[in-house]
Amino acid sequence: MPRPANPEVRTRLLSAGRDVVLERGFNGCGVQDITAAAEVPKGSFYNYFDSKESFAGEILEGYWLSIEARHGPLLYDARARPLARVAKFFRALSEDHRRHDFTLGCLIGNLSLELSNGSAETRQVLSALLRRWEAALGACLREAQERGDLAAGEDPDMLAAILVEAFEGAVMRGKVEQSGAALARFETEVLPRLLR
Amino acid sequence: MPRPANPEVRTRLLSAGRDVVLERGFNGCGVQDITAAAEVPKGSFYNYFDSKESFAGEILEGYWLSIEARHGPLLYDARARPLARVAKFFRALSEDHRRHDFTLGCLIGNLSLELSNGSAETRQVLSALLRRWEAALGACLREAQERGDLAAGEDPDMLAAILVEAFEGAVMRGKVEQSGAALARFETEVLPRLLR
Repeated sequence: MPRPANPEVRTRLLSAGRDVVLERGFNGCGVQDITAAAEVPKGSFYNYFDSKESFAGEILEGYWLSIEARHGPLLYDARARPLARVAKFFRALSEDHRRHDFTLGCLIGNLSLELSNGSAETRQVLSALLRRWEAALGACLREAQERGDLAAGEDPDMLAAILVEAFEGAVMRGKVEQSGAALARFETEVLPRLLR
Repeated sequence: MPRPANPEVRTRLLSAGRDVVLERGFNGCGVQDITAAAEVPKGSFYNYFDSKESFAGEILEGYWLSIEARHGPLLYDARARPLARVAKFFRALSEDHRRHDFTLGCLIGNLSLELSNGSAETRQVLSALLRRWEAALGACLREAQERGDLAAGEDPDMLAAILVEAFEGAVMRGKVEQSGAALARFETEVLPRLLR
């Protein structure tokens, strides 16, 4: 099918649609809710996306790219020691959640639980994003190890994985309680215990 | 509205409906899917439940009661030391997930992310269940502390909370990867680090 090239409409669909999916869940909203939020005709959705699932993949990519663009530099800031950078990165993520009173959850986590049993396509996107997140953390932890801030016997990639998993669990709890308590516990209790 | 008292139909709706919601998500299935799975007429659903949300609350309660009934005794088994009981309890939960190839996730976690932003009723049920889970773990951790197996300065309730949160994050990851790797990491890496 020939597709009209209007990148502005596409961007609006992705931006407004991401907010709608974050607020209501993927199955809690329809294509019509997404096009209405983007203020474009309903029929135009399928000019830009093959399916609602492929749309999910794209908003997930965009969600992670936005995090990388805004907070990624914290992980590479040579003015701070690597373990402090990791802590600052998670602190920045927590601040994002605070801005929405902890009610939205993480789009990656939300769709991990809502879609990964039903959509192989989304599951692959989620898996790849989690691996990118872990690779960024793992690089920082490896540097910490080279500097002697992390024990030589530790596996940076394994540590990165358990950090991400524990953080996602804390975001989930924050969403249930609509409170920052679980994320505060992650920062003050979980992070130091997992990395000591 | 007078309600026909057929506890057998009610039980079937709860049991079959729980499986449907676990497999497809709450918004990924309709009342008709639930009544079809229970093999009862669609109209009968509202004879037993005020709303789909109140049904969600009941299947969550049932989900947790089933875990308590099957695995709760592990937490009170005086033949094992308290920290070993905690490990066995999480191991039993992981085995439940293994039986479904890690594809379903935990109903509590799934609905925490899918519904807690939209349904205050479900959010309260989820919060109460998480607190019950933590209370059971906290009692065990307190006993460990009394026996000297856990440092005197530790807060058993805080530890119970971070265990539950980290476990839920590992279950989420397991669902994405359809693999037991994250739960294995929880058992061998996270649990000992959080409790040492």
